[in-house]
Amino acid sequence: MNFASDNWAGVHPAISERLLEVSSGFSAPYGASDFDKKIELRFNEIFEREVAVYFVSTGTAANSLALAAVNRPGGVSFCHREAHMLEDECGAPEFFTHGARLAPVDGDNGKVDANHLKTEIERFPPNFVHAGQPMAISITQATEIGTLYKIDEIEQIANIAKDYDLPLHMDGARFANALVSLNLTPAEMTWKRGVDILSFGATKNGCWCAEALVFMNPEVAKDLPFIRKRAAQLFSKSRFIAAQFDAYFKNDLWLQMASQANAMAQHLQLGILNSKNTRLAWKAEANEVFAIIDKATNDRLQKQGVVFYQWNTPRSKGDLVDKNEVLIRLVTSFASEKAEVEGLIALLD
Amino acid sequence: MNFASDNWAGVHPAISERLLEVSSGFSAPYGASDFDKKIELRFNEIFEREVAVYFVSTGTAANSLALAAVNRPGGVSFCHREAHMLEDECGAPEFFTHGARLAPVDGDNGKVDANHLKTEIERFPPNFVHAGQPMAISITQATEIGTLYKIDEIEQIANIAKDYDLPLHMDGARFANALVSLNLTPAEMTWKRGVDILSFGATKNGCWCAEALVFMNPEVAKDLPFIRKRAAQLFSKSRFIAAQFDAYFKNDLWLQMASQANAMAQHLQLGILNSKNTRLAWKAEANEVFAIIDKATNDRLQKQGVVFYQWNTPRSKGDLVDKNEVLIRLVTSFASEKAEVEGLIALLD
Amino acid sequence: MNFASDNWAGVHPAISERLLEVSSGFSAPYGASDFDKKIELRFNEIFEREVAVYFVSTGTAANSLALAAVNRPGGVSFCHREAHMLEDECGAPEFFTHGARLAPVDGDNGKVDANHLKTEIERFPPNFVHAGQPMAISITQATEIGTLYKIDEIEQIANIAKDYDLPLHMDGARFANALVSLNLTPAEMTWKRGVDILSFGATKNGCWCAEALVFMNPEVAKDLPFIRKRAAQLFSKSRFIAAQFDAYFKNDLWLQMASQANAMAQHLQLGILNSKNTRLAWKAEANEVFAIIDKATNDRLQKQGVVFYQWNTPRSKGDLVDKNEVLIRLVTSFASEKAEVEGLIALLD
Amino acid sequence: MNFASDNWAGVHPAISERLLEVSSGFSAPYGASDFDKKIELRFNEIFEREVAVYFVSTGTAANSLALAAVNRPGGVSFCHREAHMLEDECGAPEFFTHGARLAPVDGDNGKVDANHLKTEIERFPPNFVHAGQPMAISITQATEIGTLYKIDEIEQIANIAKDYDLPLHMDGARFANALVSLNLTPAEMTWKRGVDILSFGATKNGCWCAEALVFMNPEVAKDLPFIRKRAAQLFSKSRFIAAQFDAYFKNDLWLQMASQANAMAQHLQLGILNSKNTRLAWKAEANEVFAIIDKATNDRLQKQGVVFYQWNTPRSKGDLVDKNEVLIRLVTSFASEKAEVEGLIALLD
Repeated sequence: MNFASDNWAGVHPAISERLLEVSSGFSAPYGASDFDKKIELRFNEIFEREVAVYFVSTGTAANSLALAAVNRPGGVSFCHREAHMLEDECGAPEFFTHGARLAPVDGDNGKVDANHLKTEIERFPPNFVHAGQPMAISITQATEIGTLYKIDEIEQIANIAKDYDLPLHMDGARFANALVSLNLTPAEMTWKRGVDILSFGATKNGCWCAEALVFMNPEVAKDLPFIRKRAAQLFSKSRFIAAQFDAYFKNDLWLQMASQANAMAQHLQLGILNSKNTRLAWKAEANEVFAIIDKATNDRLQKQGVVFYQWNTPRSKGDLVDKNEVLIRLVTSFASEKAEVEGLIALLD
Repeated sequence: MNFASDNWAGVHPAISERLLEVSSGFSAPYGASDFDKKIELRFNEIFEREVAVYFVSTGTAANSLALAAVNRPGGVSFCHREAHMLEDECGAPEFFTHGARLAPVDGDNGKVDANHLKTEIERFPPNFVHAGQPMAISITQATEIGTLYKIDEIEQIANIAKDYDLPLHMDGARFANALVSLNLTPAEMTWKRGVDILSFGATKNGCWCAEALVFMNPEVAKDLPFIRKRAAQLFSKSRFIAAQFDAYFKNDLWLQMASQANAMAQHLQLGILNSKNTRLAWKAEANEVFAIIDKATNDRLQKQGVVFYQWNTPRSKGDLVDKNEVLIRLVTSFASEKAEVEGLIALLD
Repeated sequence: MNFASDNWAGVHPAISERLLEVSSGFSAPYGASDFDKKIELRFNEIFEREVAVYFVSTGTAANSLALAAVNRPGGVSFCHREAHMLEDECGAPEFFTHGARLAPVDGDNGKVDANHLKTEIERFPPNFVHAGQPMAISITQATEIGTLYKIDEIEQIANIAKDYDLPLHMDGARFANALVSLNLTPAEMTWKRGVDILSFGATKNGCWCAEALVFMNPEVAKDLPFIRKRAAQLFSKSRFIAAQFDAYFKNDLWLQMASQANAMAQHLQLGILNSKNTRLAWKAEANEVFAIIDKATNDRLQKQGVVFYQWNTPRSKGDLVDKNEVLIRLVTSFASEKAEVEGLIALLD
Repeated sequence: MNFASDNWAGVHPAISERLLEVSSGFSAPYGASDFDKKIELRFNEIFEREVAVYFVSTGTAANSLALAAVNRPGGVSFCHREAHMLEDECGAPEFFTHGARLAPVDGDNGKVDANHLKTEIERFPPNFVHAGQPMAISITQATEIGTLYKIDEIEQIANIAKDYDLPLHMDGARFANALVSLNLTPAEMTWKRGVDILSFGATKNGCWCAEALVFMNPEVAKDLPFIRKRAAQLFSKSRFIAAQFDAYFKNDLWLQMASQANAMAQHLQLGILNSKNTRLAWKAEANEVFAIIDKATNDRLQKQGVVFYQWNTPRSKGDLVDKNEVLIRLVTSFASEKAEVEGLIALLD
């Protein structure tokens, strides 16, 4: 029983199959083939506008190059205190922007709070060189703790971005999970709300390695070809990324996979709500369930072969977990099956 | 008929198959799985010593992180004037080293000349801060123009590296082609000669995306895990890189693929030597053949569907090509077939 | 009446005079002259050990190059939330370290709290690449809010530094003011406590432009000559920095100037304690006095020509200032005179 | 007798005196004082247009920040093979541009050759990401070897800059020497010819530390305040730079000092032309004279206390110096006196 992370899962068979199909024959490298171009156009359909799309190798690369594209000297980007780019990328965003800073913003439920955001931006008065200058805002959808920005919450952040003339980036490592849960179209969850740049992740949702950096306004990305190449992120046999996206989008496979992951998370959440000795930490809105269990149960589960991670209690929830308890994260994916979820629920009781 | 580049070719079926096999099930990410570890150990066998191995996404990443691992303030690395890292990586080596410089060294046949190398290094006297300080030497095997360093030529460069206490890097984007052509073992062509760091490329030789950075002395690589993560080069589903190497090494598939590519290049070279209106630019020693044809032939071949690139004449061979001629590069790969080569030869006559 | 900052003051006559004396004649540039060497040796006397000394142009340069000297990939340095390097250097420390991060640590009275420091360091488990790796600790003496680390408080931080094998940096932009106030020797306040690197500031204390980066262990600084030159911080006519330090140290001028500044601050503090409508924000321990005044008084003082800055309330003191009040900073310097201080006190009443 | 370099000289008394005058009293720091502003306006007069002026600490800083202001990902700047920024700044230009490259261009007499420049720029076809993209052109006036671009030679380079839409930078470490020698106004030698950015050096010409980065079009410099602060180049007591420029410009002192330096170089040149055992290496056009002497004379002069540097023979003049000879550089400055020059001439005979 594996609930460690969606990146422990493998690849959906339809995607593997498509990779096989394109594996023979010759094809222009570096994204120049007709096939690559065709897949890039699929993003236009999906986002209902002309977007600029750049494949990269990791989510960290997508986030970092998003900021690099809007980089400014002494720049400061605002993101949630527990954002992946701040906590889990070894300083890559700072590295790729030559030292531009990430400023942590507080907010409940893993989401940037609009008021806190304004306060933090206001710490950088225009032309005050000592402090630096605001450069971008980044939100994560779904968040690191499995919650979601509602449509008007995105809009609220986007309005602040507009007020301060800052680009709004969305880290969509679990974009599909959010989309399906909120029952929105990609356009509705992004540029129609004011999102300018999207890290479109597919790796966690059933691909092997398929991350795309999407610019809603291609003009913003005009230097990206050089930024990407210089960042060592331009694949020679790029068609194998394209092929993954090809299968990913075909017949809405991506939405189906996300739906399966989300449904399994909901099922698991229900099991936890009904269990005697396990508490839900907060409401699961995508494919991650956070629960509080006592240490004895924790040890028992691990002995019984359940794979999962303990999690640091968010600073804003400091008193959530008692001394003899631990906070755990249970992640579902396209590969999670009902039997497995029910197996875990049975063990929890 | 495609002779454009070995990165236009696809993937060997055995490698695709292995990817399929590992695509289901759960597995620890970020290279932490037993499977990843097992493949890393294969490199020890292949190199007949304990090496440190880091998978990355591109050859540019391998070269750049090799230099980042030995980075120094004001550092200068020495490589051939036509080296890939100098001519074709958009400044990535400088970017990943925060501005360390690449100093071009002249040399015939695409190879760093030992005397020129010494002269260039001597331009940086110890502790003379105005000039900067030497940091590394890099050679490419096989070179960008399809030639090879003989075993004693590597040793000669390595001795200079030792004299100046500089690490020696080998860009092995076409490592297998060189190995097979020289009939050497990996150990013989690297650390036994004095090579310290190797960009071990497999993408051009039948993989999709499989590049490894190999440190002969793991101590040199002690910060590499952080360097790689910060460089956005740590794959989450790393096992898919491991799987490619697994199949690549199995039953010497890699050497067979390189042999096929080299044999096709030799066959093509013979055809050119026997052709009336095509001259060989220089001797092909791996899987690239450079030829000189008149412009009319060039146009005709392209109309007849032969895919290949024109090439800039190396500075050292300025008078090689007449006004009505062009220099062309013809690359073979594991996927090149005899019929195709003979088809091209027929067109040349 | 000017209490804006000690960098609003000019230069002590003895220093100007020394500059004049060395202004004629020829002298080896870039710090190579006998005179430069002689002054560097003065630092050995002052610190009672062999130190490595590097002149730079600004305090920001000193702090940034201190971190650059101990830079690590994915590195994180720990400093107080209100430290100058974090709040007032436009990201220079991140820039000069290619993106190494500054992690804010809480603590009362502008001082890093030992327990908080440990907690923050512990967020970076060894070899956990996702988070990055600890790199340095930095404290400011005197602090940004005019308080002082007592000798055992420095030692406490230094012990943590030792526990985690991290270098300890001291930002001494107001080093002399701290030294005089605590009645310590430079050795006692630095390396005898465990400080490894010191930004030794003299500009604020009566020089024009005299900042020195001091390494208690010269071995740590072995690449600093290249780091400094590459950072465009190597003065050609370096002797003019040396001359300032020459006069600065002669007859303990530096200590006298700091004593004057501190005495004026104490005098001002007493005035505030005795005033009716002005409160002391916290105890002044060096040459900065922070006071709380109502907005009407603030406006009146400004009209009466008193020059000073309002200050943001530290996060840890959120409830210090009422709505109709402001927090102000009053800085004294070597150039502050008793009459001026008494003039201000008179206006406060 | 000192002919080592103009940065071995000290400070003109008028400049020292002005420094003294401004050394007392309080003044807004970081260039915000009325005095600073007034001096900045002097540059408008001198350049006969509105320019943006930024004081920095070194010529290396001026050159590096000039490039940083026009930085592009994968950027390549073109300068002469023997340019100071390429040979003598320890990679600072690359560091401040995060790895943008300097491409050496050949040319006789230390000057970028227009044809070679075009050839080098053409190596970077638009949108070809593998090579990188052109970013700037830089010329040095006077050059590193004491020669001058004539007015039409500057224009020729400027036209190429316009053709390729590249900013043209001039390294004016010895700007005044060039100006006086060519009998031009600052406007005539810069923006009227097409120069966009100027490193305006005064340190070598009688100041202590006075370097200004001048943008002919202030719009290009809009991020410079942040770039400079982040580069640790914003002086707190900036008025002391301003004061140097104040005296420098007053009554054309700067032009007088440069005239003196140039006249002394001409006098020395004449002496060499008339000497028996010394040859002129090439025509001296500013304040540097390069001569060829035999090694015995070289040793004798050094024993007799003449201070000067040997110089590497430029690559383009490989056969200039015989085995038993050396190339030496003799630099004059505002502080050079006729008696001293004649003393040297006497020793040469």
